[in-house]
Amino acid sequence: MEAEDQSSKLKGTYAVIKAWVLDLYELELERICKIVEIVRARRVLVQMPDGLKRYAINIMKFLQDRLPHVLLMFSSSKSYGSCDIAFDEAMALNADLIVHLGHTPRRYEGPIPVIYIPCYSKVRPLKSLEELSDRLKDFKIIGLSSVVQHENLLSEVREALEREGFKVIIGNDPRLPPGVVVGCDYTQALSIDSIVEAHLIIAGGLFHAIGLLMLSKRPVFLLDPYRDVIVDVEKEYRRLLSIKLSVMCKALEAKTFGIIVCLKSGQFSLSRALEAKRLLEEKGYEALIIVMRDVDPALLEGFSGIDVFINTCCPRLSFDDLEAFRRPLITLYDLQFILRKELDKYVPRIR
Amino acid sequence: MEAEDQSSKLKGTYAVIKAWVLDLYELELERICKIVEIVRARRVLVQMPDGLKRYAINIMKFLQDRLPHVLLMFSSSKSYGSCDIAFDEAMALNADLIVHLGHTPRRYEGPIPVIYIPCYSKVRPLKSLEELSDRLKDFKIIGLSSVVQHENLLSEVREALEREGFKVIIGNDPRLPPGVVVGCDYTQALSIDSIVEAHLIIAGGLFHAIGLLMLSKRPVFLLDPYRDVIVDVEKEYRRLLSIKLSVMCKALEAKTFGIIVCLKSGQFSLSRALEAKRLLEEKGYEALIIVMRDVDPALLEGFSGIDVFINTCCPRLSFDDLEAFRRPLITLYDLQFILRKELDKYVPRIR
Repeated sequence: MEAEDQSSKLKGTYAVIKAWVLDLYELELERICKIVEIVRARRVLVQMPDGLKRYAINIMKFLQDRLPHVLLMFSSSKSYGSCDIAFDEAMALNADLIVHLGHTPRRYEGPIPVIYIPCYSKVRPLKSLEELSDRLKDFKIIGLSSVVQHENLLSEVREALEREGFKVIIGNDPRLPPGVVVGCDYTQALSIDSIVEAHLIIAGGLFHAIGLLMLSKRPVFLLDPYRDVIVDVEKEYRRLLSIKLSVMCKALEAKTFGIIVCLKSGQFSLSRALEAKRLLEEKGYEALIIVMRDVDPALLEGFSGIDVFINTCCPRLSFDDLEAFRRPLITLYDLQFILRKELDKYVPRIR
Repeated sequence: MEAEDQSSKLKGTYAVIKAWVLDLYELELERICKIVEIVRARRVLVQMPDGLKRYAINIMKFLQDRLPHVLLMFSSSKSYGSCDIAFDEAMALNADLIVHLGHTPRRYEGPIPVIYIPCYSKVRPLKSLEELSDRLKDFKIIGLSSVVQHENLLSEVREALEREGFKVIIGNDPRLPPGVVVGCDYTQALSIDSIVEAHLIIAGGLFHAIGLLMLSKRPVFLLDPYRDVIVDVEKEYRRLLSIKLSVMCKALEAKTFGIIVCLKSGQFSLSRALEAKRLLEEKGYEALIIVMRDVDPALLEGFSGIDVFINTCCPRLSFDDLEAFRRPLITLYDLQFILRKELDKYVPRIR
């Protein structure tokens, strides 16, 4: 209750301080303070995506001022999603709370409590909103989705679409916030796939729009608030698909395989690795289990005796990032087509 | 005992198989098999420096043939020394043994047993051996040291020196093998520093010779078996020292500090980080604690609000690798000279 009081006392100055702390993002720093106080955490590990690290010192000052007796530590590791909670770092540091910034909350069992603080972009795509009716003129019913950073734009874009006469549908599966998608989970958009004529997805960069197009039967348009543009992602998807297929062809000739096990909390799957090993050894192939934190092309280079890497980590690496890897990086799903030599029956999927 | 029998049965074919497995190195693979069997390990994590990873698949085949029921997993992480044992990876994998290849054994307490298997280079520096008397003609008493990979050359180089009339002394501190040095521990060479006229150190690259020169009062010569050359390292040392001093000057102007805590088992020191934080806050500076596994310049770039990084990890990074970092990376020892503004009294040291 004391935490509650202190928080409301500070509320007046909050807007000003927050604007100073993060010029381009909105982050509920007060909420962090409140939870840290309520759970009486004494050692806190803060995790954030690379884009937020330039604010680390401002965030630290803000939190430390209000939490003078708490030891705040900041992880430097890459943080690509809520599949990537730094439990191992927190354990080494004897931390009693992890504050994970910038990603959609998801439930993972772990040895240390985690609070997820989304980070909302303040960018507003004004030009794009004017171009909606022109760019989407072939469709009447639009499925609208967003990544969590731009969740705050969903209602504004919905209204702009409705003003132009579109019917707008937003997916509402209970496991995720309405309309929100992540790189490997498009449940919200796919739940309305059969009733919409096209999807509009609000995200920075092509990544999420490509992921949705891979799984959807409808055209997918990207509204990128940073570049303030609307993009049809079909062409880029076709380009990545052709790279994927050429990588799969190359993998047909492999003799030695490296099976990557990922140490990230939400990606770790030794059972998938063992399944790949079993499939490979049944066919008489050599299979080396390689343990990695981040699937880094430079680290794989060292293993020069390996022809093909089996990726049991983030599945998107094996579609969107193939150009970064000099040797094929395929998933367990892909491997089954390779071993059966059935590339003609191949349909890409995320998991 | 059964393991013992099997091992001696195989001994006849051992030399041939070993040569096939590793063309440039000698590694006691039989010893690994024996220990894995004796301790009945079922899940083994193998760790190796980057240079050995090209042999990973050969090592795996050799071990798996003899240990068919053991799950062998290979770490992809950088492995720079025996300060860097992958306990966290082994715990995540539920491994019951870590096999650490290629470094000098040292004792670190950890939750999982470790076996250290040194890796001896087969390279022989023939030309250098002929040049010894010419290059070292100003000295009579030579202190001889080596990194663990070339420990097998110590007696050959000693004999070559003695044939030419030099008196040779090899350090013999009980904590390390005779004459063997590592990047942050020159006990063997320093124990004879006052009685030799110059040091000759057998190592690939300048790193270890530079480290010894930093601490020794004698000239240091490097015998690099890979390049088959003898090098006086004074000039390179002076160059690195001038970079170090210019970085220290730059650090004098800092307002914000990032204190790096290293997650590597033998480098982790939260107490050193807290000491730095205390020193900085006493003087009114802002200090952010940053947690890292490998001190990677690219990861530090993200923290753009920080002027100077305090390195509580491998101390050599803050002397030999400064050119890789765009902002000053200083040690806790260095920080005390910065805070007292006493650069004129500065003497470099490793720890």
